[in-house]
Amino acid sequence: MIRAGIVGGTGYTGVELLRILASHAEIEVAVVTSRADAGLRVDALYPSLRGYIDVVFSPPDIETLVQCDVVFFATPNGTAMLMAEQLLRRGIKVIDLSADFRLKDAPEWNRWYGMEHACPDLIAEAVYGLPEINRKAIKQAKLIACPGCYPTAVQLGFLPLIENGLIAVDHLIADVKSGVSGAGRKAELATLMSETGESFKAYAASGHRHLPEIEQGLALSARKPVGLTFVPHLTPMIRGIHATLYGQLSGAKVDDIQALYEQRYRNEVFVDVLPQGSHPDTRNVRGSNNCQISIHQPQGKQTIVVLSVIDNLVKGAAGQAVQNMNLMFGLKEDAGLKTIALYP
Amino acid sequence: MIRAGIVGGTGYTGVELLRILASHAEIEVAVVTSRADAGLRVDALYPSLRGYIDVVFSPPDIETLVQCDVVFFATPNGTAMLMAEQLLRRGIKVIDLSADFRLKDAPEWNRWYGMEHACPDLIAEAVYGLPEINRKAIKQAKLIACPGCYPTAVQLGFLPLIENGLIAVDHLIADVKSGVSGAGRKAELATLMSETGESFKAYAASGHRHLPEIEQGLALSARKPVGLTFVPHLTPMIRGIHATLYGQLSGAKVDDIQALYEQRYRNEVFVDVLPQGSHPDTRNVRGSNNCQISIHQPQGKQTIVVLSVIDNLVKGAAGQAVQNMNLMFGLKEDAGLKTIALYP
Amino acid sequence: MIRAGIVGGTGYTGVELLRILASHAEIEVAVVTSRADAGLRVDALYPSLRGYIDVVFSPPDIETLVQCDVVFFATPNGTAMLMAEQLLRRGIKVIDLSADFRLKDAPEWNRWYGMEHACPDLIAEAVYGLPEINRKAIKQAKLIACPGCYPTAVQLGFLPLIENGLIAVDHLIADVKSGVSGAGRKAELATLMSETGESFKAYAASGHRHLPEIEQGLALSARKPVGLTFVPHLTPMIRGIHATLYGQLSGAKVDDIQALYEQRYRNEVFVDVLPQGSHPDTRNVRGSNNCQISIHQPQGKQTIVVLSVIDNLVKGAAGQAVQNMNLMFGLKEDAGLKTIALYP
Amino acid sequence: MIRAGIVGGTGYTGVELLRILASHAEIEVAVVTSRADAGLRVDALYPSLRGYIDVVFSPPDIETLVQCDVVFFATPNGTAMLMAEQLLRRGIKVIDLSADFRLKDAPEWNRWYGMEHACPDLIAEAVYGLPEINRKAIKQAKLIACPGCYPTAVQLGFLPLIENGLIAVDHLIADVKSGVSGAGRKAELATLMSETGESFKAYAASGHRHLPEIEQGLALSARKPVGLTFVPHLTPMIRGIHATLYGQLSGAKVDDIQALYEQRYRNEVFVDVLPQGSHPDTRNVRGSNNCQISIHQPQGKQTIVVLSVIDNLVKGAAGQAVQNMNLMFGLKEDAGLKTIALYP
Repeated sequence: MIRAGIVGGTGYTGVELLRILASHAEIEVAVVTSRADAGLRVDALYPSLRGYIDVVFSPPDIETLVQCDVVFFATPNGTAMLMAEQLLRRGIKVIDLSADFRLKDAPEWNRWYGMEHACPDLIAEAVYGLPEINRKAIKQAKLIACPGCYPTAVQLGFLPLIENGLIAVDHLIADVKSGVSGAGRKAELATLMSETGESFKAYAASGHRHLPEIEQGLALSARKPVGLTFVPHLTPMIRGIHATLYGQLSGAKVDDIQALYEQRYRNEVFVDVLPQGSHPDTRNVRGSNNCQISIHQPQGKQTIVVLSVIDNLVKGAAGQAVQNMNLMFGLKEDAGLKTIALYP
Repeated sequence: MIRAGIVGGTGYTGVELLRILASHAEIEVAVVTSRADAGLRVDALYPSLRGYIDVVFSPPDIETLVQCDVVFFATPNGTAMLMAEQLLRRGIKVIDLSADFRLKDAPEWNRWYGMEHACPDLIAEAVYGLPEINRKAIKQAKLIACPGCYPTAVQLGFLPLIENGLIAVDHLIADVKSGVSGAGRKAELATLMSETGESFKAYAASGHRHLPEIEQGLALSARKPVGLTFVPHLTPMIRGIHATLYGQLSGAKVDDIQALYEQRYRNEVFVDVLPQGSHPDTRNVRGSNNCQISIHQPQGKQTIVVLSVIDNLVKGAAGQAVQNMNLMFGLKEDAGLKTIALYP
Repeated sequence: MIRAGIVGGTGYTGVELLRILASHAEIEVAVVTSRADAGLRVDALYPSLRGYIDVVFSPPDIETLVQCDVVFFATPNGTAMLMAEQLLRRGIKVIDLSADFRLKDAPEWNRWYGMEHACPDLIAEAVYGLPEINRKAIKQAKLIACPGCYPTAVQLGFLPLIENGLIAVDHLIADVKSGVSGAGRKAELATLMSETGESFKAYAASGHRHLPEIEQGLALSARKPVGLTFVPHLTPMIRGIHATLYGQLSGAKVDDIQALYEQRYRNEVFVDVLPQGSHPDTRNVRGSNNCQISIHQPQGKQTIVVLSVIDNLVKGAAGQAVQNMNLMFGLKEDAGLKTIALYP
Repeated sequence: MIRAGIVGGTGYTGVELLRILASHAEIEVAVVTSRADAGLRVDALYPSLRGYIDVVFSPPDIETLVQCDVVFFATPNGTAMLMAEQLLRRGIKVIDLSADFRLKDAPEWNRWYGMEHACPDLIAEAVYGLPEINRKAIKQAKLIACPGCYPTAVQLGFLPLIENGLIAVDHLIADVKSGVSGAGRKAELATLMSETGESFKAYAASGHRHLPEIEQGLALSARKPVGLTFVPHLTPMIRGIHATLYGQLSGAKVDDIQALYEQRYRNEVFVDVLPQGSHPDTRNVRGSNNCQISIHQPQGKQTIVVLSVIDNLVKGAAGQAVQNMNLMFGLKEDAGLKTIALYP
């Protein structure tokens, strides 16, 4: 049994890790930390876990965490970078679900996240945990920077076009819609039910932190810089991300593109290219680690439209983290991740 | 491998059976019928099942169904009673999720369901599939009448009080709230999002078909007739039932009652009595086969309040059906049913 | 023009007062206070009011408020009792939407609200602002204690039965469901969309602050003490309260009761008894000051069921406050309150 | 008093017309037709209208409708074109909320709507009812083709840029999200709460009927053909449209554009340009006839982003129809349309 620890077990990505790991046959959840709730049973806070988790929240101490083989950080940005080095030095693998190690350019990180990076030396060592482009490196990694939820949906949607040089990369558009759980479990006015229910809005239209992360990832695939306009929106539901992606084609016909996507993701267990003409629906991936994708070329014109959906808490966070862990420990990539989406 | 068939695989209880059975290690889904969609792949209609189910809808023919070891009816009322006898005669076990075999009194069935029962001879043979009161009979049964969703939540909530004669059974009150998936997958104005979203209402306050079923079940436990006022409500969510039950105590203190409930359900894997003072939340059982229960005695007065929640499509339908199947085939009672609720 | 002030203009009852008063032909909104947002335009915080309100939030100073003819308190409990006396002394009418002056028994108030009442002398003078029972007193009042949202729906539902002695008043049951806006505009985990969406639960089953208020009101109508079991629930929508009320009849037939209700509310512009057999739906009063009521007597038995719906922010708060104001100033009772519910 | 008739009074645009007209001081709702519900009181079907509408549904006969001064068609496509001519000949003004007279090119209409236009001669006479571009013609019109909901939000968002030649018109993108009431009040699986709640999807990505209508409108403003990629989405709420519009600038800075928008809509009572940096929220126009607009230029790059929100049933249908009527009859343009949005 692999012993897993979770730092920051009281947020939505933390409890989602618990849901997945509690059913993972090869994992024992050994430590779950929470400064505020130390001493409390985990299932007292999350009654959905009654009967599945028998752990008590402990304070986030290194000495407790070193009992683990792997530690997940489901913390706000700025925490993992303070603790990762000590764990790595003691031989513990680290999977960070926050943004601390996602950007390779530390000054850019400082600018977007409004603080000084505490551990810039580790940035180079961190492997960006998107298995669909980085599987080999993940298997060898000691420190994983899990992709953000938006970047996962957008990159998986754009990749086949960009890797094959089929669209102009200087004017990409990603119009993305997220359920409110993406905002985390924080007491804030903006995500009250009365504020977000029955209403739809864009936010951060002038610049969101996931923009440089997506541009960094796409540039690697394009082998040149890319220009992206990324507008995130809040949609009145709890889980799910729907990315609607627009690019200008350089000549290919949609039949070719459908085949190209199917070919690209043929061996990916968690990326599912829907039949031509489909529209993916976030409900069909809710609770699962799947990404479902459709491609459209309206009126046969130059603008290609890619629709890409994930569950922001699973493939966009906890599920992807476990997928990375499976790869790092030589387990089957989908171990513990065969949950079917909850429909309706 | 046990070969399972599903008659009526296109409704919500049908697709929920598919979700559960597709992950059940000892079951092969061999046949899924749908008159309207015969010839179509099941996962073409339900993209959430892509990668998990490889079956094509077939017409509902007896000769196809007899290849199965067990057949589930996830059909509208009035269908199972036409086909069950032929299947039973050929040695196939039948689990009916509809109401056809729930009421022991055929004329009463005719009255509430507005048709003549086609197969009254089988009624006596049918076992009411609530394992928490009927486990022994279920193990021997060939024909199971799965309880309705409301009756499951209400009976599990009232049982310990009634079995022990602690409340007056002539004036029981069950104020129950259901998500809209309980109304089924039918093209109807009343369950459009625009009609049910952001709104709350009671319906059938003067009499709902689940009333005689609940009264029949409670009377068996009470060993005398009971009088129930049952008011169902529609709440603007998809899954979940919350029963708020009221009874007049005959003297017991709440501490005793808490202990009584804990004792009664100690060995029940799917009934979870929450710590005293709790309020169960339907989200904590969403997608799982659990029933969570709390007991309150406001101001120490004579009126006892029991709160009981289930997922109407799981413990209230497909999950309970699989629980029955497990018992009938000598499998572990929770085989295929260890899914943790999806929170948030 | 009557000059109105609002203390605490940033909560949901405050902004709802603004919505109503901004369209009220005989009212000028002169002062809106907010300590936190002083100096900010009201419509900068609430863009829905752009074009309708031209006021800037001011600090809650008595000297500013005395320019008004009437001051509404849309504040948390414990604020109005600190300021009401000074305003009344200067001749300004006060309408308190909080709970400060609702209970006639100060020690009981202290117990339920967890603080010492700062102004017990005014309690006797305060008129309970439920026009359907107190219209005459309201017209003469200088200080109005607006009823709570739950108490409004429950009292209007029970009144005709209780005033006429038709039900046993010692075991009344009120099972009431509220939208989440009733919890107010506060940054709290419990009312996040991710916590309340797609889920249903009871809360405060062992005792809620509105219990003594309802019992006080019903006892006045019954002319004797009443015993009520009151269980509030949170339903996943923003606006609306649905009260399901249960009482034991002493002999009357439902036809009589329907007529009794119609007679009782014949002249009430905001209470609408639906045709026999109906089920009121909260959507049909959303945004309006109406209460819609139906009465059922399931299976002709002794238990009577009353269904009563209001919009918690209108008839349950701001609308009722304006109704009181209209009466106090001799205006038409429905002035500014003829808004039709927003369906769908 | 102007006498108004509504053909097709049982859909969502019909009942929304009733909500607005019932409060309109200069209108008497004289006739409301419904073939299916003829003889039934309108408020029996729509209890939200109790006390406000005293009319009985009548069959859709010309002889009944000629008693009116103006007739609204809130019917499915294909009905107004069969009746409009007879009404116009008898001197009755016609306002069509369906798509029958929106496209100027009859063969194109036939292609997109899948039927032969029954009355192509009237198409030229019909005035496209978007007051912000067509006010003068509307005042003189006898037959109004009310714009679709998507076209209203998209055109109002793009207009200032296009009228001033500031963006390339050959690659416009409109990513638009609609609440489910836009699908109408029809018994269909696709718009059940269980199918649309808690889920988000695109639909008709390869071509939606509103595409030619938007292109026709924008081309008039651009004085040349435009190329638009239009992807509609269904968002899990009832009312509201949010258009996110993308265009490639030809040099202008965002400050200029903000000023340009403010200048363009300075005298438009129903178009509100929010302060720079804002994000409009559909809740802030829910139930009102307003369109709120923001403009962003992310990272100062060439791609301009316009956010435009309306209530699909008001400014996107019934409210705009009444705005047209006001203009046609010389009333104040906002008569009956001063309803403040319902927040929260």
